Amino acid sequence: MAKGLTSRAENYSQWYNELVIKADLAENSAVRGCMVIKPYGYAIWEKMQAVLDKMFKETGHENAYFPLFIPKSFFSKEASHVEGFAKECAVVTHYRLKNDENGKGIIVDPEAKLEEELIIRPTSETIIWNTYKNWIQSYRDLPILLNQWANVVRWEMRTRLFLRTAEFLWQEGHTAHATQTEAIIETKKMVNVYATFAEKYMALPVHIGTKSESERFAGALETYSIEALMQDGKALQAGTSHFLGQNFAKAFDVKFASKEENKLEYVWATSWGVSTRLIGGLIMAHSDDKGLVLPPKLAPYQVIIVPIYKGEQELAKISEKVEEMMQKLRNIDISVKYDNRDSQKPGWKFAEYELKGVPVRIAIGPRDLENGTAEVARRDELTKEIVNIEGIENYIKNLLDQIQENIFQKALKYREQHTTKVDSYEEFKEILENKGGFVLAHWDGTKETEERIKNETKATIRNIPEYLPLEDGVDMLTGKPSKGRVLFAKSY
Amino acid sequence: MAKGLTSRAENYSQWYNELVIKADLAENSAVRGCMVIKPYGYAIWEKMQAVLDKMFKETGHENAYFPLFIPKSFFSKEASHVEGFAKECAVVTHYRLKNDENGKGIIVDPEAKLEEELIIRPTSETIIWNTYKNWIQSYRDLPILLNQWANVVRWEMRTRLFLRTAEFLWQEGHTAHATQTEAIIETKKMVNVYATFAEKYMALPVHIGTKSESERFAGALETYSIEALMQDGKALQAGTSHFLGQNFAKAFDVKFASKEENKLEYVWATSWGVSTRLIGGLIMAHSDDKGLVLPPKLAPYQVIIVPIYKGEQELAKISEKVEEMMQKLRNIDISVKYDNRDSQKPGWKFAEYELKGVPVRIAIGPRDLENGTAEVARRDELTKEIVNIEGIENYIKNLLDQIQENIFQKALKYREQHTTKVDSYEEFKEILENKGGFVLAHWDGTKETEERIKNETKATIRNIPEYLPLEDGVDMLTGKPSKGRVLFAKSY
Repeated sequence: MAKGLTSRAENYSQWYNELVIKADLAENSAVRGCMVIKPYGYAIWEKMQAVLDKMFKETGHENAYFPLFIPKSFFSKEASHVEGFAKECAVVTHYRLKNDENGKGIIVDPEAKLEEELIIRPTSETIIWNTYKNWIQSYRDLPILLNQWANVVRWEMRTRLFLRTAEFLWQEGHTAHATQTEAIIETKKMVNVYATFAEKYMALPVHIGTKSESERFAGALETYSIEALMQDGKALQAGTSHFLGQNFAKAFDVKFASKEENKLEYVWATSWGVSTRLIGGLIMAHSDDKGLVLPPKLAPYQVIIVPIYKGEQELAKISEKVEEMMQKLRNIDISVKYDNRDSQKPGWKFAEYELKGVPVRIAIGPRDLENGTAEVARRDELTKEIVNIEGIENYIKNLLDQIQENIFQKALKYREQHTTKVDSYEEFKEILENKGGFVLAHWDGTKETEERIKNETKATIRNIPEYLPLEDGVDMLTGKPSKGRVLFAKSY
Repeated sequence: MAKGLTSRAENYSQWYNELVIKADLAENSAVRGCMVIKPYGYAIWEKMQAVLDKMFKETGHENAYFPLFIPKSFFSKEASHVEGFAKECAVVTHYRLKNDENGKGIIVDPEAKLEEELIIRPTSETIIWNTYKNWIQSYRDLPILLNQWANVVRWEMRTRLFLRTAEFLWQEGHTAHATQTEAIIETKKMVNVYATFAEKYMALPVHIGTKSESERFAGALETYSIEALMQDGKALQAGTSHFLGQNFAKAFDVKFASKEENKLEYVWATSWGVSTRLIGGLIMAHSDDKGLVLPPKLAPYQVIIVPIYKGEQELAKISEKVEEMMQKLRNIDISVKYDNRDSQKPGWKFAEYELKGVPVRIAIGPRDLENGTAEVARRDELTKEIVNIEGIENYIKNLLDQIQENIFQKALKYREQHTTKVDSYEEFKEILENKGGFVLAHWDGTKETEERIKNETKATIRNIPEYLPLEDGVDMLTGKPSKGRVLFAKSY
């Protein structure tokens, strides 16, 4: 267990909060609900951004940037959208400060009041569709496939670092299409991009599915999500992709002249996003009581090298060997850091990099030099091996692949062990209470039943997985007929 | 001249405004003073970001992220800082909207008033130094070398796309040091990084120098800037690096235990930034009456290939050859796009890519195929050559280097022709009136003289170039003694 880190068994929630701080990922700022993302945490975000950005571009999207501010009137144009976001909006009302004439210091200048208040974007559908209106006249202007990397603000009352913050960083894709089919294909394509990213890069197995009506994005006709399981048996919604139908096109009067009949039709829309919340999911899914466990593909550096030495001469000899080794590792695109600080002992460094989740640690001392070996430790399994320095880069490359796969398999196994099929409400409650995880159960499809289950058990329908076979059954609560099981869980 | 583009001679300012729109770089949004950066404009920003980010990391900096909001009280802590920014602050006062009970639609909920107003960051010194206070105890915690990529808001009354907008994108470096010397070295290092970026990537020659006291950043002891010359003879401040002394450390009480005497000392600070304004400078410095001229190192794509064909069969043959060619170009890291759209004629495409400033155009038709040649046109000189397809990738690589250098040399020549040494105020006014550009003149070092010159001629001291030799002289206006010339110009 890392110095003073609460164990998961003791208090999972506290373990998470402490780990985010101790591993130097982020901290709470002086502004309520807003976080400071520290360099080590931000480096993970940069890795995520790089991979996702490439995936978006490979699927035909370009980046653009739209204003931070949304005029209040835009907000009101799509009824369910404003209903969904109105309660958590940061509102700009003035544009100037001044010195108080009565010596009370700096005050907001009452004369600098905006004619129309501006909302800090909680999401950008409205400002973007107001812009698309001018860009779209004919089918030739479609599709529009844009993404934006941005900060957004939702005035959440209860916040937690990465998982739920008033300001967060994210990307939001906003696409416009000539046909419903094309928009639905886009919606599905992007939720699949997210699932691929989660599984291949975050080593996080996810369930793809559609949200129930009451859990849909405000303004969407269908919301797809990816849902992952954390180590405390709670689910985390890790990304969403929305089929918006013609709702925003109608709200902002965006029509195009179609190819066939040259008549004016409303444009079809999608939007999709993932955020810095993913970092919270990454931490909670894989880390242990010693600290972070980072999948090699997203680790700020994959290998840390620690010299074991007495005196400057020994260090110089080791460093020479290490420089060679680093060059070889970098040549095959492995990121590596050498910690030759004299101010800390090796034991301290070992604990520090375990805490920070560096996938592989290489320790090298004078005896290693003599033998042409190094000690290689893997973070995921906390095991060590003595490895020949000759050809060590290939060993490490292979090891990093193994670690990536092992972390995924562990998470998958955990999920399998914590996915339960139940047929009675008693069993449902018992599982949620004692075992946690995903519960697959029949549901009659009504809001009322969903609401009652939520109130009584705190579990919600995470999504309706598309891959599940149709299966006739009866709702566990009402006994009404059901066409298939849905995925329940308590969630973040 | 591009379709409907005003010429520079006719109206430079209008030429710029039209070009930004016609080349699909950006447009005004529905929110006063805020722009929409369109994909082609954003792609230039992404190129800039990638290069700068690498340069920052190579000079030892890491990225982090701090809140968008700054509590009003933080702002007041550094007196000259608040004075500099108070008049252009967007202020958040409420955190909720609601349905008006009298049916007036969505209104700001008066009950959701913040106890303390939040300012949208116009720059982040205050929120960052409030954070650094907790990070810094001892000399071991120094230096801190951070950068942030972010949006900021300054409520400007007169805005222009890229050059001056209420919201803009930028990076802001914020560093903390144990000694004054170290902080000054950092300040200079970063203005040099900006100068290198401007000259090597933007092909934009710049003058590095210090600002006069009245033009310094609000809160700085010294501000370094890079100043570039636009084609209308006006200067553009393209980047600044500030030595902040201990001002922010004192305002936020940030002290460290020093190594030598273990006594508490205030920390030394720098900050430095460049913004999307650079895109405005890039456009204004190089482009012509046919449209953009982009330096190859920052062009979203460097080569456009246009097929000249009749019928699908010819196109198929050409496309086959083009695919080969593109592979070879991409193999040596040249970005290339193939425009095989049937909906537009070659002539239209030629004009379009000239407007968009693509550095090299390759046109290829059936006769070219027979001869094994292609027509290669360069955007900067608007000249064409017939080139053998065999080995064309090396020709293009070389050509792109030549174009990059040529654009820089042109800008340099323009600057040399528009830099005038003057010794009398009459001449000074005459040059500003009729020739424009930079004027090197003696100044007595007082605010009063600077102010008078500004009021009478609209010219300001752009900076005091460090490379200029000391030279005894007399102020052209007051006749008082001067130790050297400074750089005057009208500016954006």
